[in-house]
Amino acid sequence: MEKTSQKLARFANGSVAAIYDSAERENEADLVFLAATATPSRIRLLRHDAGGLICVAMGGQEAKGIGLKFAAKILSDAGYGKMACKRAPYGDFPSFALWVNHESARTGITDAERARTCRELGKLAARPGRKAFQKSFRAPGHVATLISRGLENRKGHTELACTLAKIAGKPQAVALCEMLQGDGRRSERSAKAFCKKRRIPMFSTGEILGEYERWKQKKSG
Amino acid sequence: MEKTSQKLARFANGSVAAIYDSAERENEADLVFLAATATPSRIRLLRHDAGGLICVAMGGQEAKGIGLKFAAKILSDAGYGKMACKRAPYGDFPSFALWVNHESARTGITDAERARTCRELGKLAARPGRKAFQKSFRAPGHVATLISRGLENRKGHTELACTLAKIAGKPQAVALCEMLQGDGRRSERSAKAFCKKRRIPMFSTGEILGEYERWKQKKSG
Repeated sequence: MEKTSQKLARFANGSVAAIYDSAERENEADLVFLAATATPSRIRLLRHDAGGLICVAMGGQEAKGIGLKFAAKILSDAGYGKMACKRAPYGDFPSFALWVNHESARTGITDAERARTCRELGKLAARPGRKAFQKSFRAPGHVATLISRGLENRKGHTELACTLAKIAGKPQAVALCEMLQGDGRRSERSAKAFCKKRRIPMFSTGEILGEYERWKQKKSG
Repeated sequence: MEKTSQKLARFANGSVAAIYDSAERENEADLVFLAATATPSRIRLLRHDAGGLICVAMGGQEAKGIGLKFAAKILSDAGYGKMACKRAPYGDFPSFALWVNHESARTGITDAERARTCRELGKLAARPGRKAFQKSFRAPGHVATLISRGLENRKGHTELACTLAKIAGKPQAVALCEMLQGDGRRSERSAKAFCKKRRIPMFSTGEILGEYERWKQKKSG
Protein backbone atom coordinates (compact mmCIF):
# COMPACT_ATOMS: atom_id res chain seq x y z
CA MET A 1 0.00 0.00 0.00
CA GLU A 2 1.21 3.44 -0.95
CA LYS A 3 1.92 5.75 2.01
CA THR A 4 -0.28 8.81 2.49
CA SER A 5 2.76 11.09 2.12
CA GLN A 6 3.60 9.48 -1.24
CA LYS A 7 0.02 9.87 -2.45
CA LEU A 8 0.08 13.51 -1.35
CA ALA A 9 3.32 14.12 -3.26
CA ARG A 10 1.73 12.68 -6.40
CA PHE A 11 -1.35 14.92 -5.97
CA ALA A 12 0.93 17.95 -5.42
CA ASN A 13 2.78 17.07 -8.63
CA GLY A 14 -0.47 17.16 -10.58
CA SER A 15 -1.77 13.59 -10.39
CA VAL A 16 -5.47 12.80 -10.45
CA ALA A 17 -6.55 11.47 -7.02
CA ALA A 18 -9.75 10.20 -5.40
CA ILE A 19 -11.33 11.08 -2.06
CA TYR A 20 -13.85 8.83 -0.31
CA ASP A 21 -15.80 10.49 2.50
CA SER A 22 -17.64 7.95 4.69
CA ALA A 23 -20.66 5.66 4.85
CA GLU A 24 -22.22 8.08 7.37
CA ARG A 25 -21.95 11.03 5.02
CA GLU A 26 -22.42 10.96 1.22
CA ASN A 27 -20.78 7.52 0.93
CA GLU A 28 -19.19 8.83 -2.19
CA ALA A 29 -15.82 8.89 -3.95
CA ASP A 30 -14.87 11.95 -5.99
CA LEU A 31 -12.07 12.27 -8.54
CA VAL A 32 -9.97 15.39 -7.83
CA PHE A 33 -6.95 17.25 -9.24
CA LEU A 34 -5.44 20.72 -8.95
CA ALA A 35 -7.57 22.98 -11.17
CA ALA A 36 -4.40 24.45 -12.69
CA THR A 37 -3.60 21.00 -14.18
CA ALA A 38 -6.93 20.59 -16.03
CA THR A 39 -6.71 19.34 -19.63
CA PRO A 40 -9.41 18.27 -22.10
CA SER A 41 -8.58 14.60 -21.50
CA ARG A 42 -8.98 15.07 -17.75
CA ILE A 43 -12.39 16.66 -18.28
CA ARG A 44 -13.28 13.66 -20.44
CA LEU A 45 -12.16 11.37 -17.60
CA LEU A 46 -14.45 13.23 -15.18
CA ARG A 47 -17.51 13.22 -17.42
CA HIS A 48 -17.03 9.73 -18.85
CA ASP A 49 -15.55 7.72 -15.99
CA ALA A 50 -16.84 9.71 -13.00
CA GLY A 51 -20.15 11.06 -14.34
CA GLY A 52 -21.15 13.62 -11.72
CA LEU A 53 -20.96 17.41 -11.88
CA ILE A 54 -17.63 18.96 -12.87
CA CYS A 55 -16.82 21.50 -10.17
CA VAL A 56 -13.93 23.58 -8.86
CA ALA A 57 -13.64 23.76 -5.08
CA MET A 58 -12.12 27.05 -3.89
CA GLY A 59 -10.59 27.71 -0.49
CA GLY A 60 -12.39 30.17 1.81
CA GLN A 61 -9.65 32.81 1.43
CA GLU A 62 -9.49 32.39 -2.33
CA ALA A 63 -13.30 32.68 -2.58
CA LYS A 64 -13.29 35.81 -0.43
CA GLY A 65 -10.49 37.25 -2.53
CA ILE A 66 -12.49 36.96 -5.75
CA GLY A 67 -15.83 37.93 -4.19
CA LEU A 68 -17.43 34.51 -4.57
CA LYS A 69 -20.63 34.01 -2.54
CA PHE A 70 -22.58 30.87 -1.65
CA ALA A 71 -25.47 30.14 -4.04
CA ALA A 72 -27.76 29.57 -1.05
CA LYS A 73 -27.12 33.15 0.13
CA ILE A 74 -27.68 34.59 -3.35
CA LEU A 75 -30.91 32.60 -3.79
CA SER A 76 -32.19 33.57 -0.34
CA ASP A 77 -31.65 37.24 -1.18
CA ALA A 78 -33.48 36.66 -4.49
CA GLY A 79 -36.66 35.49 -2.75
CA TYR A 80 -36.00 31.73 -2.80
CA GLY A 81 -35.37 31.56 0.96
CA LYS A 82 -37.92 28.80 1.49
CA MET A 83 -36.21 26.41 -0.88
CA ALA A 84 -32.62 27.58 -0.34
CA CYS A 85 -30.23 27.03 2.55
CA LYS A 86 -31.65 23.67 3.54
CA ARG A 87 -29.24 21.13 4.97
CA ALA A 88 -28.81 17.87 3.05
CA PRO A 89 -30.13 14.73 4.81
CA TYR A 90 -26.55 13.98 5.98
CA GLY A 91 -26.54 17.32 7.83
CA ASP A 92 -24.42 19.66 5.72
CA PHE A 93 -25.25 22.88 3.92
CA PRO A 94 -24.37 22.86 0.20
CA SER A 95 -21.00 24.24 -0.99
CA PHE A 96 -22.24 25.53 -4.34
CA ALA A 97 -21.34 29.07 -5.36
CA LEU A 98 -21.56 30.36 -8.98
CA TRP A 99 -21.57 28.38 -12.23
CA VAL A 100 -19.00 30.02 -14.50
CA ASN A 101 -17.34 29.97 -17.94
CA HIS A 102 -14.00 31.56 -18.76
CA GLU A 103 -14.66 34.62 -20.94
CA SER A 104 -12.97 32.91 -23.90
CA ALA A 105 -15.64 30.17 -24.03
CA ARG A 106 -17.98 29.79 -26.99
CA THR A 107 -20.56 27.32 -25.65
CA GLY A 108 -18.64 26.59 -22.44
CA ILE A 109 -19.43 22.85 -22.48
CA THR A 110 -16.69 21.26 -24.62
CA ASP A 111 -13.85 19.44 -22.88
CA ALA A 112 -11.38 22.09 -24.05
CA GLU A 113 -13.56 24.91 -22.75
CA ARG A 114 -14.33 23.36 -19.38
CA ALA A 115 -10.61 22.56 -18.99
CA ARG A 116 -9.75 26.19 -19.74
CA THR A 117 -12.35 27.41 -17.22
CA CYS A 118 -10.84 25.12 -14.54
CA ARG A 119 -7.26 26.15 -15.36
CA GLU A 120 -8.09 29.84 -15.26
CA LEU A 121 -9.80 29.39 -11.87
CA GLY A 122 -6.58 27.71 -10.76
CA LYS A 123 -4.53 30.67 -11.97
CA LEU A 124 -6.90 33.12 -10.31
CA ALA A 125 -6.65 31.27 -6.98
CA ALA A 126 -2.88 31.87 -7.04
CA ARG A 127 -3.53 35.64 -7.19
CA PRO A 128 -7.15 36.17 -6.15
CA GLY A 129 -8.72 39.42 -7.25
CA ARG A 130 -12.33 40.54 -7.45
CA LYS A 131 -11.82 42.62 -10.58
CA ALA A 132 -9.89 39.86 -12.33
CA PHE A 133 -12.72 37.41 -11.56
CA GLN A 134 -15.45 39.69 -12.89
CA LYS A 135 -13.37 40.56 -15.95
CA SER A 136 -12.29 37.04 -16.92
CA PHE A 137 -15.37 34.95 -16.14
CA ARG A 138 -19.03 34.86 -17.13
CA ALA A 139 -21.97 33.53 -15.10
CA PRO A 140 -24.13 31.51 -15.40
CA GLY A 141 -21.76 29.01 -17.00
CA HIS A 142 -20.85 25.33 -17.22
CA VAL A 143 -18.41 24.72 -14.34
CA ALA A 144 -19.73 24.90 -10.76
CA THR A 145 -17.59 26.65 -8.18
CA LEU A 146 -17.74 25.44 -4.58
CA ILE A 147 -16.54 27.21 -1.43
CA SER A 148 -14.69 25.38 1.34
CA ARG A 149 -15.85 26.13 4.89
CA GLY A 150 -12.62 24.63 6.29
CA LEU A 151 -12.18 21.09 7.54
CA GLU A 152 -12.94 22.24 11.11
CA ASN A 153 -16.50 23.14 10.05
CA ARG A 154 -17.41 20.60 7.36
CA LYS A 155 -15.89 17.33 6.20
CA GLY A 156 -17.24 17.24 2.67
CA HIS A 157 -15.35 16.61 -0.58
CA THR A 158 -15.01 20.39 -1.02
CA GLU A 159 -13.14 20.81 2.28
CA LEU A 160 -11.18 17.55 1.91
CA ALA A 161 -10.00 18.51 -1.59
CA CYS A 162 -9.03 22.05 -0.55
CA THR A 163 -7.15 20.66 2.46
CA LEU A 164 -5.10 18.41 0.16
CA ALA A 165 -4.13 21.49 -1.87
CA LYS A 166 -3.34 23.43 1.30
CA ILE A 167 -1.06 20.73 2.72
CA ALA A 168 0.55 20.41 -0.71
CA GLY A 169 1.37 24.12 -0.60
CA LYS A 170 -0.77 24.87 -3.64
CA PRO A 171 -3.48 27.49 -4.24
CA GLN A 172 -6.82 26.07 -3.11
CA ALA A 173 -8.60 25.52 -6.42
CA VAL A 174 -9.33 21.83 -7.01
CA ALA A 175 -11.37 20.31 -9.84
CA LEU A 176 -13.65 17.51 -8.63
CA CYS A 177 -16.45 15.24 -9.81
CA GLU A 178 -18.57 12.55 -8.13
CA MET A 179 -17.85 8.97 -9.26
CA LEU A 180 -21.03 7.22 -10.35
CA GLN A 181 -21.39 3.80 -11.94
CA GLY A 182 -23.91 1.70 -13.82
CA ASP A 183 -26.65 2.25 -11.29
CA GLY A 184 -25.58 5.84 -10.70
CA ARG A 185 -23.88 5.12 -7.41
CA ARG A 186 -20.33 3.87 -7.20
CA SER A 187 -19.65 1.90 -4.02
CA GLU A 188 -16.46 2.43 -2.03
CA ARG A 189 -15.29 -1.00 -3.16
CA SER A 190 -15.93 -0.35 -6.85
CA ALA A 191 -14.29 3.10 -6.65
CA LYS A 192 -11.24 1.47 -5.04
CA ALA A 193 -11.03 -1.09 -7.85
CA PHE A 194 -11.28 1.65 -10.50
CA CYS A 195 -8.53 3.70 -8.82
CA LYS A 196 -6.26 0.67 -8.40
CA LYS A 197 -6.60 -0.22 -12.09
CA ARG A 198 -5.83 3.34 -13.18
CA ARG A 199 -3.12 3.82 -10.51
CA ILE A 200 -5.05 6.75 -9.04
CA PRO A 201 -4.15 7.42 -5.37
CA MET A 202 -7.22 7.27 -3.13
CA PHE A 203 -7.55 9.14 0.18
CA SER A 204 -9.95 8.47 3.04
CA THR A 205 -11.30 11.26 5.25
CA GLY A 206 -9.25 9.85 8.13
CA GLU A 207 -6.02 10.03 6.14
CA ILE A 208 -6.60 13.65 5.15
CA LEU A 209 -7.54 14.61 8.74
CA GLY A 210 -4.35 12.89 9.99
CA GLU A 211 -2.11 14.59 7.40
CA TYR A 212 -3.72 17.94 8.20
CA GLU A 213 -3.02 17.54 11.93
CA ARG A 214 0.62 16.67 11.20
CA TRP A 215 0.90 19.63 8.84
CA LYS A 216 -0.53 22.03 11.43
CA GLN A 217 1.83 20.73 14.14
CA LYS A 218 4.81 21.03 11.84
CA LYS A 219 3.79 24.57 10.91
CA SER A 220 3.32 25.72 14.51
CA GLY A 221 6.31 23.77 15.89
CA MET B 1 -36.02 8.54 -43.86
CA GLU B 2 -38.56 8.89 -41.11
CA LYS B 3 -41.10 11.70 -41.58
CA THR B 4 -41.01 14.65 -39.17
CA SER B 5 -44.58 13.88 -38.06
CA GLN B 6 -43.58 10.29 -37.22
CA LYS B 7 -40.57 11.45 -35.25
CA LEU B 8 -42.77 13.93 -33.41
CA ALA B 9 -45.26 11.17 -32.53
CA ARG B 10 -42.42 9.09 -31.10
CA PHE B 11 -41.17 12.03 -29.01
CA ALA B 12 -44.74 12.67 -27.77
CA ASN B 13 -44.99 9.02 -26.76
CA GLY B 14 -41.89 9.36 -24.60
CA SER B 15 -39.03 8.48 -26.96
CA VAL B 16 -35.58 10.00 -26.55
CA ALA B 17 -34.87 12.36 -29.46
CA ALA B 18 -32.01 14.59 -30.62
CA ILE B 19 -32.01 18.20 -31.78
CA TYR B 20 -29.23 19.70 -33.90
CA ASP B 21 -29.20 23.50 -34.06
CA SER B 22 -26.91 24.82 -36.83
CA ALA B 23 -23.30 25.41 -37.78
CA GLU B 24 -23.91 29.16 -37.32
CA ARG B 25 -25.06 28.74 -33.74
CA GLU B 26 -23.69 26.22 -31.17
CA ASN B 27 -23.17 23.57 -33.88
CA GLU B 28 -24.39 21.12 -31.30
CA ALA B 29 -26.75 18.16 -30.99
CA ASP B 30 -28.59 17.63 -27.70
CA LEU B 31 -30.41 14.52 -26.51
CA VAL B 32 -33.92 15.41 -25.29
CA PHE B 33 -37.00 13.71 -23.78
CA LEU B 34 -40.11 14.78 -21.90
CA ALA B 35 -38.98 15.36 -18.29
CA ALA B 36 -41.94 13.31 -17.04
CA THR B 37 -40.45 10.21 -18.73
CA ALA B 38 -37.05 10.42 -16.97
CA THR B 39 -35.67 7.16 -15.57
CA PRO B 40 -32.29 6.29 -14.02
CA SER B 41 -31.21 4.55 -17.24
CA ARG B 42 -32.07 7.66 -19.27
CA ILE B 43 -29.98 9.81 -16.92
CA ARG B 44 -27.17 7.30 -17.43
CA LEU B 45 -27.60 7.68 -21.21
CA LEU B 46 -27.29 11.46 -20.87
CA ARG B 47 -24.22 11.45 -18.64
CA HIS B 48 -22.45 8.54 -20.32
CA ASP B 49 -23.34 8.86 -24.00
CA ALA B 50 -24.07 12.60 -24.21
CA GLY B 51 -21.73 13.98 -21.53
CA GLY B 52 -22.89 17.60 -21.16
CA LEU B 53 -24.97 19.17 -18.41
CA ILE B 54 -28.25 17.47 -17.51
CA CYS B 55 -30.91 20.17 -17.66
CA VAL B 56 -34.69 20.58 -17.75
CA ALA B 57 -35.96 23.22 -20.18
CA MET B 58 -39.21 24.82 -18.99
CA GLY B 59 -41.67 26.78 -21.12
CA GLY B 60 -42.02 30.50 -20.42
CA GLN B 61 -45.53 30.05 -18.99
CA GLU B 62 -44.51 27.10 -16.85
CA ALA B 63 -41.48 29.02 -15.53
CA LYS B 64 -43.67 32.01 -14.71
CA GLY B 65 -46.17 29.76 -13.00
CA ILE B 66 -43.57 28.36 -10.60
CA GLY B 67 -41.74 31.66 -10.08
CA LEU B 68 -38.58 30.61 -11.89
CA LYS B 69 -36.21 33.48 -12.74
CA PHE B 70 -33.20 33.65 -15.07
CA ALA B 71 -29.85 33.10 -13.31
CA ALA B 72 -28.43 36.15 -15.10
CA LYS B 73 -31.12 38.35 -13.48
CA ILE B 74 -30.54 36.83 -10.03
CA LEU B 75 -26.76 37.26 -10.35
CA SER B 76 -27.07 40.84 -11.58
CA ASP B 77 -29.20 41.68 -8.56
CA ALA B 78 -26.58 39.99 -6.35
CA GLY B 79 -23.80 42.33 -7.51
CA TYR B 80 -22.39 40.20 -10.33
CA GLY B 81 -23.76 42.47 -13.06
CA LYS B 82 -20.37 42.87 -14.75
CA MET B 83 -19.96 39.15 -15.33
CA ALA B 84 -23.62 38.24 -15.75
CA CYS B 85 -26.01 38.83 -18.62
CA LYS B 86 -23.36 38.64 -21.32
CA ARG B 87 -24.35 37.23 -24.67
CA ALA B 88 -22.54 34.10 -25.84
CA PRO B 89 -20.26 34.57 -28.89
CA TYR B 90 -23.08 33.21 -31.10
CA GLY B 91 -25.29 36.10 -29.92
CA ASP B 92 -27.73 34.57 -27.44
CA PHE B 93 -28.27 35.23 -23.74
CA PRO B 94 -28.04 32.11 -21.55
CA SER B 95 -31.21 30.17 -20.64
CA PHE B 96 -30.02 29.03 -17.21
CA ALA B 97 -32.35 29.51 -14.25
CA LEU B 98 -31.92 27.64 -10.91
CA TRP B 99 -30.06 24.38 -10.22
CA VAL B 100 -32.46 22.21 -8.20
CA ASN B 101 -32.93 18.87 -6.40
CA HIS B 102 -36.27 17.31 -5.57
CA GLU B 103 -36.77 17.55 -1.80
CA SER B 104 -36.52 13.73 -1.51
CA ALA B 105 -32.88 13.75 -2.69
CA ARG B 106 -30.03 12.64 -0.45
CA THR B 107 -26.97 13.78 -2.42
CA GLY B 108 -28.98 14.73 -5.53
CA ILE B 109 -26.38 13.37 -7.98
CA THR B 110 -27.25 9.67 -8.40
CA ASP B 111 -29.07 8.59 -11.56
CA ALA B 112 -32.17 7.72 -9.51
CA GLU B 113 -32.19 11.11 -7.81
CA ARG B 114 -31.60 13.17 -10.94
CA ALA B 115 -34.32 11.14 -12.70
CA ARG B 116 -36.72 11.88 -9.83
CA THR B 117 -35.86 15.60 -9.95
CA CYS B 118 -36.56 15.64 -13.71
CA ARG B 119 -39.82 13.69 -13.37
CA GLU B 120 -41.09 15.94 -10.57
CA LEU B 121 -40.31 19.02 -12.68
CA GLY B 122 -42.35 17.36 -15.42
CA LYS B 123 -45.26 16.83 -13.04
CA LEU B 124 -45.01 20.40 -11.78
CA ALA B 125 -45.09 21.76 -15.33
CA ALA B 126 -48.46 20.06 -15.82
CA ARG B 127 -49.86 22.06 -12.89
CA PRO B 128 -47.44 24.94 -12.27
CA GLY B 129 -47.57 26.53 -8.82
CA ARG B 130 -45.12 28.76 -6.98
CA LYS B 131 -45.84 27.23 -3.57
CA ALA B 132 -45.55 23.67 -4.88
CA PHE B 133 -42.16 24.54 -6.42
CA GLN B 134 -40.77 26.08 -3.23
CA LYS B 135 -42.15 23.23 -1.13
CA SER B 136 -40.96 20.32 -3.28
CA PHE B 137 -37.57 21.50 -4.51
CA ARG B 138 -34.27 22.64 -2.99
CA ALA B 139 -31.70 24.98 -4.55
CA PRO B 140 -28.79 24.92 -5.25
CA GLY B 141 -29.06 21.37 -6.58
CA HIS B 142 -27.83 19.02 -9.31
CA VAL B 143 -30.24 19.53 -12.24
CA ALA B 144 -30.15 22.85 -14.12
CA THR B 145 -33.45 24.41 -15.09
CA LEU B 146 -33.61 26.49 -18.27
CA ILE B 147 -36.29 28.95 -19.35
CA SER B 148 -37.54 29.12 -22.94
CA ARG B 149 -37.88 32.60 -24.45
CA GLY B 150 -40.08 31.23 -27.23
CA LEU B 151 -38.92 30.20 -30.69
CA GLU B 152 -39.80 33.68 -32.00
CA ASN B 153 -37.08 35.20 -29.76
CA ARG B 154 -34.35 32.56 -29.62
CA LYS B 155 -33.60 29.41 -31.56
CA GLY B 156 -31.57 27.55 -28.97
CA HIS B 157 -31.98 23.96 -27.79
CA THR B 158 -34.10 25.24 -24.88
CA GLU B 159 -36.68 26.81 -27.22
CA LEU B 160 -36.50 24.00 -29.80
CA ALA B 161 -37.08 21.35 -27.12
CA CYS B 162 -39.97 23.25 -25.52
CA THR B 163 -41.54 23.77 -28.95
CA LEU B 164 -41.46 20.01 -29.59
CA ALA B 165 -43.34 19.51 -26.29
CA LYS B 166 -45.79 22.28 -27.18
CA ILE B 167 -46.61 20.84 -30.62
CA ALA B 168 -46.90 17.41 -29.00
CA GLY B 169 -49.53 18.81 -26.65
CA LYS B 170 -47.39 18.10 -23.58
CA PRO B 171 -46.40 20.31 -20.63
CA GLN B 172 -43.22 22.17 -21.54
CA ALA B 173 -40.64 20.48 -19.33
CA VAL B 174 -38.00 18.70 -21.39
CA ALA B 175 -34.82 17.02 -20.11
CA LEU B 176 -31.82 17.75 -22.32
CA CYS B 177 -28.05 17.29 -22.47
CA GLU B 178 -25.34 18.32 -24.94
CA MET B 179 -23.78 15.45 -26.93
CA LEU B 180 -20.02 15.49 -26.65
CA GLN B 181 -17.56 12.91 -27.92
CA GLY B 182 -13.92 11.90 -27.54
CA ASP B 183 -12.60 15.37 -28.15
CA GLY B 184 -15.48 16.95 -26.26
CA ARG B 185 -17.33 18.08 -29.35
CA ARG B 186 -19.64 15.79 -31.28
CA SER B 187 -19.95 16.80 -34.92
CA GLU B 188 -23.33 16.82 -36.65
CA ARG B 189 -22.23 13.78 -38.66
CA SER B 190 -21.12 11.78 -35.63
CA ALA B 191 -24.30 12.70 -33.72
CA LYS B 192 -26.33 11.50 -36.72
CA ALA B 193 -24.47 8.19 -36.75
CA PHE B 194 -25.04 7.71 -33.00
CA CYS B 195 -28.77 8.44 -33.33
CA LYS B 196 -29.15 6.15 -36.35
CA LYS B 197 -27.50 3.28 -34.48
CA ARG B 198 -29.71 3.76 -31.43
CA ARG B 199 -32.83 4.50 -33.51
CA ILE B 200 -33.14 7.93 -31.89
CA PRO B 201 -35.15 10.38 -34.05
CA MET B 202 -33.13 13.51 -34.85
CA PHE B 203 -34.65 16.92 -35.60
CA SER B 204 -33.07 19.89 -37.32
CA THR B 205 -33.95 23.48 -36.42
CA GLY B 206 -35.63 23.82 -39.83
CA GLU B 207 -37.87 20.80 -39.23
CA ILE B 208 -39.03 22.11 -35.86
CA LEU B 209 -39.66 25.60 -37.28
CA GLY B 210 -41.68 24.04 -40.12
CA GLU B 211 -43.74 21.83 -37.79
CA TYR B 212 -44.35 24.80 -35.51
CA GLU B 213 -45.66 26.90 -38.42
CA ARG B 214 -48.02 24.10 -39.51
CA TRP B 215 -49.17 23.66 -35.89
CA LYS B 216 -49.92 27.40 -35.53
CA GLN B 217 -51.84 27.50 -38.82
CA LYS B 218 -53.85 24.43 -37.85
CA LYS B 219 -54.63 25.96 -34.46
CA SER B 220 -55.74 29.33 -35.87
CA GLY B 221 -57.51 27.84 -38.89
